[in-house]
Amino acid sequence: MSKVKIGIVQTSCTADIQLNMQNTTRAIKQAISNGAQIICLPEMYRTLYFCQTQDYEQFKTAETIPGPSTELFSKIAKENNVVIIAPLFEKRTDGLYHNTIAVIDADGSITDIYRKMHIPHDPGFEEKFYFTPGDLGFKAIKTKYATIGTLICWDQWYPEAARLTALKGAQILFYPTAIGWDAKEPDAIKPSQLDAWQTIQRSHSIANGCFVCAVNRIGTEGDLQFWGSSFLSNTMGEIVANTGHEQEETLVVEIDLSEIDDTRTHWPFFRDRRIDFYGDLTKRFID
Amino acid sequence: MSKVKIGIVQTSCTADIQLNMQNTTRAIKQAISNGAQIICLPEMYRTLYFCQTQDYEQFKTAETIPGPSTELFSKIAKENNVVIIAPLFEKRTDGLYHNTIAVIDADGSITDIYRKMHIPHDPGFEEKFYFTPGDLGFKAIKTKYATIGTLICWDQWYPEAARLTALKGAQILFYPTAIGWDAKEPDAIKPSQLDAWQTIQRSHSIANGCFVCAVNRIGTEGDLQFWGSSFLSNTMGEIVANTGHEQEETLVVEIDLSEIDDTRTHWPFFRDRRIDFYGDLTKRFID
Repeated sequence: MSKVKIGIVQTSCTADIQLNMQNTTRAIKQAISNGAQIICLPEMYRTLYFCQTQDYEQFKTAETIPGPSTELFSKIAKENNVVIIAPLFEKRTDGLYHNTIAVIDADGSITDIYRKMHIPHDPGFEEKFYFTPGDLGFKAIKTKYATIGTLICWDQWYPEAARLTALKGAQILFYPTAIGWDAKEPDAIKPSQLDAWQTIQRSHSIANGCFVCAVNRIGTEGDLQFWGSSFLSNTMGEIVANTGHEQEETLVVEIDLSEIDDTRTHWPFFRDRRIDFYGDLTKRFID
Repeated sequence: MSKVKIGIVQTSCTADIQLNMQNTTRAIKQAISNGAQIICLPEMYRTLYFCQTQDYEQFKTAETIPGPSTELFSKIAKENNVVIIAPLFEKRTDGLYHNTIAVIDADGSITDIYRKMHIPHDPGFEEKFYFTPGDLGFKAIKTKYATIGTLICWDQWYPEAARLTALKGAQILFYPTAIGWDAKEPDAIKPSQLDAWQTIQRSHSIANGCFVCAVNRIGTEGDLQFWGSSFLSNTMGEIVANTGHEQEETLVVEIDLSEIDDTRTHWPFFRDRRIDFYGDLTKRFID
């Protein structure tokens, strides 16, 4: 049973939370009808990407775990025997919020949660205002169909995050994402931004001999044009399935987890890591 | 003075050490005549890639530091005011050998050495037989024209090596290499191997906002067809210069080191590393 079908749900969002939940439910059911067993949503599927500005009102859109999202997805997961990777805006307690993933296993239970560890903060991506950096570290989460790693958006630029998650046994790294082109930036640099985003994640497949699945949102919100381009890369870093950057899409792709052992055996990078010399990776800079 | 011209010297090798030294000297002088200031050679430029088999006779081709290679290159470096990155087979003492780089500064002095940290060992790449793993760690080496990092071939698959070298201040990561296609492997996987090799190194540019320069050998030796395809990637991981995979080539490309600060300021990955959670990178696996 080394084969598993991955559902990539690339959706756009509106200002209406209920509508977004309905639209996502529709897309998930489409993925299920195409055989998906592990389904991944884009980062913060339930709202517009409100981090373009610092707005206290937006904290009201946060939810607890369990809460509306996990209740909805637990029901769908249990009824259809699927795993759902649900990224949401978590209210942990009064005045304390995280950018979080709840992993719902095929029996409908909340197997584990991951809290986004690397938080960006740039004009148009004002995330440090909203999200306390995760305090749970990096995780591999056993589900019915595979042991998965869940990371979120900005995490994707950090080889350390991918490595630690793979070293814990993750076979597939999922990256729910909300990334796009800023209308204020010149068109000339846009292809290189998208290419860098794709390349760094493909490199996590290569370095760790594992699968990577990036699921981005789509559509234009204010100055941001989310570039979609969700993809799945195999253990050699080759893209084996991808969506476009124009519209909502639901994609189901079958992968064979036995490729991990085969790739790692032939390119045994794990064998030769110089762990005796990696200690300084915990330093900010080595002056 | 943020601009610097990089010389990529992609050579083939023969069984004749003197001939290889002469040919390399010729190529270096060609790079110098085209304005190169920092010149990088392929891994073990002086011999055939003898690691295809385990042969005690080959230890006789090793040299000390200083030795024939450093004497030759020190003279050229001093006369022409250039930096030379010289990868060689180092005899450290009786029965103790390394795969080493000597960095020759523009005044002809041996500024520093780097000993290959990650040693492969696969059929056709029997390196653990010959090379003791490096014990000097990862280094950034100040030269007249730039602060450079020197890593060797198999090191290129390890994000940890690139990160540590960049954290020490390296502006350009050089990877002298001897990698190729094995005639015993199916043709179908060859493009994905080359693409993975390029992608993982481009990802080091992206993750660290620095330049990467890979210099590979060319030509067929026994079962191995070295694929050349030397390249330089900029701080966004874009390939700005590359050789082909058919013949010897000497390429000189000018880069602007000020792009490092610009890229890192706009994509501030160094700012947000979760060094409080990276400690387990010193573990082999996290069971």
